[in-house]
Amino acid sequence: MKVTVKVPASTANIGSGVDCLGIGLSKYLTVVMEDSEQFEVIFKEGFSGEIPLQDNLVYEGAKRIFDKQGTEFPTVKITMFTDIPGSRGLGSSASAIVAGVYLANAWLGEPFDEHVLIDEATAIEGHPDNIVPCAVGGFTIAMMDKDDVHYHKIVPNRDLRFVTAIPDYELSTKLARSVVPTDFSRADLVVQLQRACFLVGAIASGDLRQLDISTKDLVFTPARKTLIPGFDDVTENATNAGAMCAMISGAGPTIIAFAVDNVEQIRQAMEDGFTKNNINSNVEILKVDTKGAIVIVER
Amino acid sequence: MKVTVKVPASTANIGSGVDCLGIGLSKYLTVVMEDSEQFEVIFKEGFSGEIPLQDNLVYEGAKRIFDKQGTEFPTVKITMFTDIPGSRGLGSSASAIVAGVYLANAWLGEPFDEHVLIDEATAIEGHPDNIVPCAVGGFTIAMMDKDDVHYHKIVPNRDLRFVTAIPDYELSTKLARSVVPTDFSRADLVVQLQRACFLVGAIASGDLRQLDISTKDLVFTPARKTLIPGFDDVTENATNAGAMCAMISGAGPTIIAFAVDNVEQIRQAMEDGFTKNNINSNVEILKVDTKGAIVIVER
Repeated sequence: MKVTVKVPASTANIGSGVDCLGIGLSKYLTVVMEDSEQFEVIFKEGFSGEIPLQDNLVYEGAKRIFDKQGTEFPTVKITMFTDIPGSRGLGSSASAIVAGVYLANAWLGEPFDEHVLIDEATAIEGHPDNIVPCAVGGFTIAMMDKDDVHYHKIVPNRDLRFVTAIPDYELSTKLARSVVPTDFSRADLVVQLQRACFLVGAIASGDLRQLDISTKDLVFTPARKTLIPGFDDVTENATNAGAMCAMISGAGPTIIAFAVDNVEQIRQAMEDGFTKNNINSNVEILKVDTKGAIVIVER
Repeated sequence: MKVTVKVPASTANIGSGVDCLGIGLSKYLTVVMEDSEQFEVIFKEGFSGEIPLQDNLVYEGAKRIFDKQGTEFPTVKITMFTDIPGSRGLGSSASAIVAGVYLANAWLGEPFDEHVLIDEATAIEGHPDNIVPCAVGGFTIAMMDKDDVHYHKIVPNRDLRFVTAIPDYELSTKLARSVVPTDFSRADLVVQLQRACFLVGAIASGDLRQLDISTKDLVFTPARKTLIPGFDDVTENATNAGAMCAMISGAGPTIIAFAVDNVEQIRQAMEDGFTKNNINSNVEILKVDTKGAIVIVER
């Protein structure tokens, strides 16, 4: 048997929608699992080296599903290709976990429904905001209810482009989370909630005005941007070049800008913003991924 | 000239959507302004007595627009009818202010656009969450940007009914606001934001599952419900009788439940919940108002 899974990158938070909103993006992790004489994991394109099994989130995701089903991990060859860079705020961890749970579920003949796979993947990741868009694609709103994840998916305006400036340094999500304040005023809570809800309304209605305000974040960004040299230059350059908004993607350090027009100018302006701060970056023009995890089984 | 304005009641917060979400409801304030020999204000149906001019929010709303235009308040007769009870959490203040600003704008030949009227009304009321649904109807998401109000409007599922239990005592919004905590943890902020965003997604998609969770409020309700005897009985009775969710309407003391089916049983169960606490109530089955403020000018 051979199972192939392809899962998208994702951007989480979308500024104001902390630990809740996400968007599937058109960069992908592909994993192939097939019968083999011996267990082996092969890292192809996009990996800088081998990942030891205890740190391999594809393996961990798959193992969780095999364990849940009470089945031994089969003797297989697992081959991975990715164009999602790690520790950049583009959901590479979530993509690995989602790939693993979908792989194992397909291998087992799909004993578990999507909502179980999302719950199990979220239990590993800790937060649903990258897991859900990676699993289902589109713009997603995730809500935790104890250990259950509920979500709504909205397919945003097809003309939207995500100009994604990926600097050539990593930022650990753990560090990015450690600097954030733990207490907020009611006034700040209300402001943040209004913006996030308004953003959902904007995506749902397709009326994309005021994205600059509605994506503005009071919770993570003020502290996190201090860990991202170039943040102010890159975001200002993006909006000056015509982006509707620009923000940290997930825990950073990637900066993502939304645009319908002028995407090439925005791309250049964002690259210039990092260059001004002596940082090399790769700025890509991405689309929304509307499918999420896709699986093909060959028997 | 004769200008007639009719504006709906509204329910604000919708549980988790504090100071942001609202719904226009099918109860109305109607105000007629017409040329007259002398200035007079006449209170007809629904008013327990006269409201002195300095406390009259219809007058205040209208005066704000006449002042903004640099015009004297005209010598008119103003006649009011209402079925929106005051100080119950059904947006009676917002309805009066909105009626006033729309009346004056129509009287002047509509010099101001809707967004100006909403901004001016919000400047008087202090919060946009009742003003916006009163002005435009439907389910609304309001966001403040300094003094500007931005909103999205979604027309919810037409089968939704709002079973609205109005107890026979008043609760001032000021008191209801004074008891609420001023600081929240980041964890609480995230939970509240996930729920409110999910609720927006539910109304936008028409997928009304999990409304019980998504409307659950950590900000206002835990403190406010102590000011509303019967809260637990009325909300539990409502959901036990089949309501999707039940919550304080605005600042209370009205309790509002969402339902598509079993509305008569829910109505009775909510009345029983207040009766059990020795409180008389009027429980009405309302629909969404989808039009907001409507104006007719007769020359």
